Amino acid sequence: MRFVSCTLAAVAALIAAPAAADTLVDNVDGITVNESGDVVRFTGLVFDDDGKVRELLKRGDDRPTDVDFALDGEGRVMLPGMIDAHAHVMGIGFGALLLDLSDTNSLEEALTKIDQFAKDNPGRPWILGRGWNQEKWGLGRFPTAEELDAIISDRPVWLQRVDGHASWANSKAIEVAGVTAANDDPVGGRIIRKAGSRAPAGVFIDAAEALVNKVVPEPRPEDRDAALAKAQEILLNNGITAVADMGTSIQDWQTFRRSGDRGALNVRIMSYATDGDTMELIAGPGPTPWLYDDKLRMGGIKLYLDGALGSRGAILKEPYADEPQTRGLPLMTPAQLRNTMSRAALDNFQTAIHAIGDAANSDVLLAIQELSDTYTGDRRWRIEHAQVVDPAELAEFGKHGVIASMQPLHQTSDRTMAEARLGPDRLEGAYAWRSVLRVGGKLAFGSDAPVEPTDAFAGFAVAISRTDANGQPFGGWLPSETVSREAALKAFTSDAAYAGFADGHFGRLIAGERADFLLVDRDPMLASPSAIRETEILQVWVGGKRMR
Amino acid sequence: MRFVSCTLAAVAALIAAPAAADTLVDNVDGITVNESGDVVRFTGLVFDDDGKVRELLKRGDDRPTDVDFALDGEGRVMLPGMIDAHAHVMGIGFGALLLDLSDTNSLEEALTKIDQFAKDNPGRPWILGRGWNQEKWGLGRFPTAEELDAIISDRPVWLQRVDGHASWANSKAIEVAGVTAANDDPVGGRIIRKAGSRAPAGVFIDAAEALVNKVVPEPRPEDRDAALAKAQEILLNNGITAVADMGTSIQDWQTFRRSGDRGALNVRIMSYATDGDTMELIAGPGPTPWLYDDKLRMGGIKLYLDGALGSRGAILKEPYADEPQTRGLPLMTPAQLRNTMSRAALDNFQTAIHAIGDAANSDVLLAIQELSDTYTGDRRWRIEHAQVVDPAELAEFGKHGVIASMQPLHQTSDRTMAEARLGPDRLEGAYAWRSVLRVGGKLAFGSDAPVEPTDAFAGFAVAISRTDANGQPFGGWLPSETVSREAALKAFTSDAAYAGFADGHFGRLIAGERADFLLVDRDPMLASPSAIRETEILQVWVGGKRMR
Repeated sequence: MRFVSCTLAAVAALIAAPAAADTLVDNVDGITVNESGDVVRFTGLVFDDDGKVRELLKRGDDRPTDVDFALDGEGRVMLPGMIDAHAHVMGIGFGALLLDLSDTNSLEEALTKIDQFAKDNPGRPWILGRGWNQEKWGLGRFPTAEELDAIISDRPVWLQRVDGHASWANSKAIEVAGVTAANDDPVGGRIIRKAGSRAPAGVFIDAAEALVNKVVPEPRPEDRDAALAKAQEILLNNGITAVADMGTSIQDWQTFRRSGDRGALNVRIMSYATDGDTMELIAGPGPTPWLYDDKLRMGGIKLYLDGALGSRGAILKEPYADEPQTRGLPLMTPAQLRNTMSRAALDNFQTAIHAIGDAANSDVLLAIQELSDTYTGDRRWRIEHAQVVDPAELAEFGKHGVIASMQPLHQTSDRTMAEARLGPDRLEGAYAWRSVLRVGGKLAFGSDAPVEPTDAFAGFAVAISRTDANGQPFGGWLPSETVSREAALKAFTSDAAYAGFADGHFGRLIAGERADFLLVDRDPMLASPSAIRETEILQVWVGGKRMR
Repeated sequence: MRFVSCTLAAVAALIAAPAAADTLVDNVDGITVNESGDVVRFTGLVFDDDGKVRELLKRGDDRPTDVDFALDGEGRVMLPGMIDAHAHVMGIGFGALLLDLSDTNSLEEALTKIDQFAKDNPGRPWILGRGWNQEKWGLGRFPTAEELDAIISDRPVWLQRVDGHASWANSKAIEVAGVTAANDDPVGGRIIRKAGSRAPAGVFIDAAEALVNKVVPEPRPEDRDAALAKAQEILLNNGITAVADMGTSIQDWQTFRRSGDRGALNVRIMSYATDGDTMELIAGPGPTPWLYDDKLRMGGIKLYLDGALGSRGAILKEPYADEPQTRGLPLMTPAQLRNTMSRAALDNFQTAIHAIGDAANSDVLLAIQELSDTYTGDRRWRIEHAQVVDPAELAEFGKHGVIASMQPLHQTSDRTMAEARLGPDRLEGAYAWRSVLRVGGKLAFGSDAPVEPTDAFAGFAVAISRTDANGQPFGGWLPSETVSREAALKAFTSDAAYAGFADGHFGRLIAGERADFLLVDRDPMLASPSAIRETEILQVWVGGKRMR
């Protein structure tokens, strides 16, 4: 057990706790989703030595006399640990260890930061980073290799765009990769060319990123271990005690297991493999059992049906409003999608399908309808992002147990861009959270970190307000698609667990589920959206052990 | 806990045993290697609820009164579980599920058996088998594709030779693989050609086997799980409670973990990866911890420096006596060997190097000498097989902590063939077990199963006699290289564990190591070699749990 110093008394004594010691955390203002799906209040929680909730206590209930430790919550708000239903765990860690350009507001600011990072890291053979966004910079075009060359020409520089669907190289990186004017665009990708020429300009979109990625040195196992440790630290600091990892490679999985094997896996990971072969290699003939006391499970596969709106990779039914010659780049054919889903479902694996554009969502919904005849039972088909849905098809989210795994923060980040890409007439089914609930669908909320910050409280604030950190736009963007505070809590806790087949294991503070909880300084059911964003996380407990 | 019906009283009661229950197995004729490396006797053994030995008792010692269960060994001989220091775990399982030709004594007998197997398995797309040996058949040449075509022409047939260094295909398999007269021999391999032609004749040696192997359908995860279960059953039936797996692929490893994750790993596996990338993928920045209560650990890498004597792949200092134009096929350059050993040693991985011919052993010994300056400490460099050693270099086995991992049964199987390959003047350093001990080297004994049967008692009998199952040759082959019964026991138990860095975990019945033991019907320290081969294994216990 690991305990950090804290304001609660008696915690130090727990280190030498005898077996089968039960603990009461009393005097809290507790909030959780219960067995019936209702948000309920409590004032005390008892958990056992296995780290599972034994019982909840309400004001006036007799306190049990058979517990070994009683901790005073000092009236703090207790919440279930937040669950991020869509993130990239290793990406969070690697991202945190790399150059981060997500806070830059202009090309010049970014170049200054890149220059400083290179000077600070003279030993790194490649300068790797992420987070740039030419839209946010107001550049009106992609940045170029030459702009990077002016500051670094002797080492390769390779910087991923904020949405992960494009990357920016300097000339050295392009040279090492051997990409020249002779390279055609790969299927599903695009090489941005210099004006009036076929020479690569510096930015590589979607499948074209692989041309450079393939020469970037692979991280060593110790780099991966460091990245996972960093990712767990970031998640726990944000009150996130469980996460769905969307696109686990065999290397990622081995890193998770190394951490689990040495007792260092502190965040619960619901894992979805990058592809069918990897899923089979990791899990075998069916999903793995829950490993390490409900800390890790490989449950299914993550598929990409299209790209992102920002890079115009998302596939749309009608052309992009701001680039009428394209409707996006499909990454799988309908037959490939169905075959891969079938293969997974046959072995009782879950499928989580990235679908951003309305054409992609349309195809996934149709595939689910077709497959549901054959693969009956509790399938929990997941659609990841579900950003732009044809309003005529929204009702399909209420059928076949579909789960819409959506990311509130994307709505605020994408708002202006989405309006440009889609035009004013196609926004009705965009980021349509309440519509999903209205037709009877299930919502699971996440961050898509490292694309967005791992900030579930900011996500909660957006979910109930459709406004950004500055309160913009006033009154909220398409505010009819906000959800209630209760729905936001469910989507970030119990339903995020349900979406990963983790109900019964964690996600709610109910008897038999893991005692994963937070003590925070304010009540998200009462505070204003801007106040919720400022929530201070005082303590984080996972499985009855204090982690922060 | 799993208990099978047995002659000992009170076992059924253990199923509902309380925590921290100690067990006394009394009235046994116990034999083990002790902490000092001596073979000692005892009459009672106490193990705790973790499955670890608490104490040994001698005749006349007071019996502890604080144990919860007392079992009567009825005077049976108790031995430590046998450890196979070199086997191919998945190969044992797959081999047992495939057509086995190892008992055939002629080509005609083999063809009859193949025909019957194909008729018994109409649904199998490929007829896969192993175990043929044209030497044993007295064929004087390799068998041909045409001989197989005469019985099966509509399905591919692909049959591995007994030593795993050659395979025999029918024409359908060659056609599916697309191998024609146009194919050159690959590096490190040979396509046997039809007389006076370049057309493939049917047999593919060493690296050339890959030409067909690449089109054999991969086993599914459930096939792998079945093979591992079968391998464990075979090992336990033979009294083998731990094994070094020589050449673990990532698929093998995942199969081991699936078994461990569901509590079905009953044989302890000391795992050595097939190559450096796989080792890094499986274990990360260093060896894994012992997993599943000392059931599994990835500790190093298995390298092949040459092939086998039978297929003339072993590399010799002078040409083969029976094929003077060849000295064998080196599979790594000296630089590759040293680089790979360095890479492993840098991260504290162990290296186990397959070296059969005297040239191969010479190179490994030299490499170890060179690397020992840099990689000091407890390295336990392993040489696998060490079959033919230049007598002038035998003393090197006493230096740098080298471990000779040798397989007694190979000596009896190879005797006639080795005499033909080497001629009479090069046998002095062949299968030279006692010489290794004489110069101060460590011996670890194994089977190389499925190349040889997983029969440690037969191996023990050969180790002390240098005679085969028929007692041939009378007086033993090069009998000065027999070892004592004590040395044989050590090489099949404590030193086989030591060779896998498992000392302190298992291999001896001493306090703190795992209670892995056998009850058998005779005393291998007293019985004749032929009687030892007939040892009846009455009970097999692993970690204090009865497995058989």
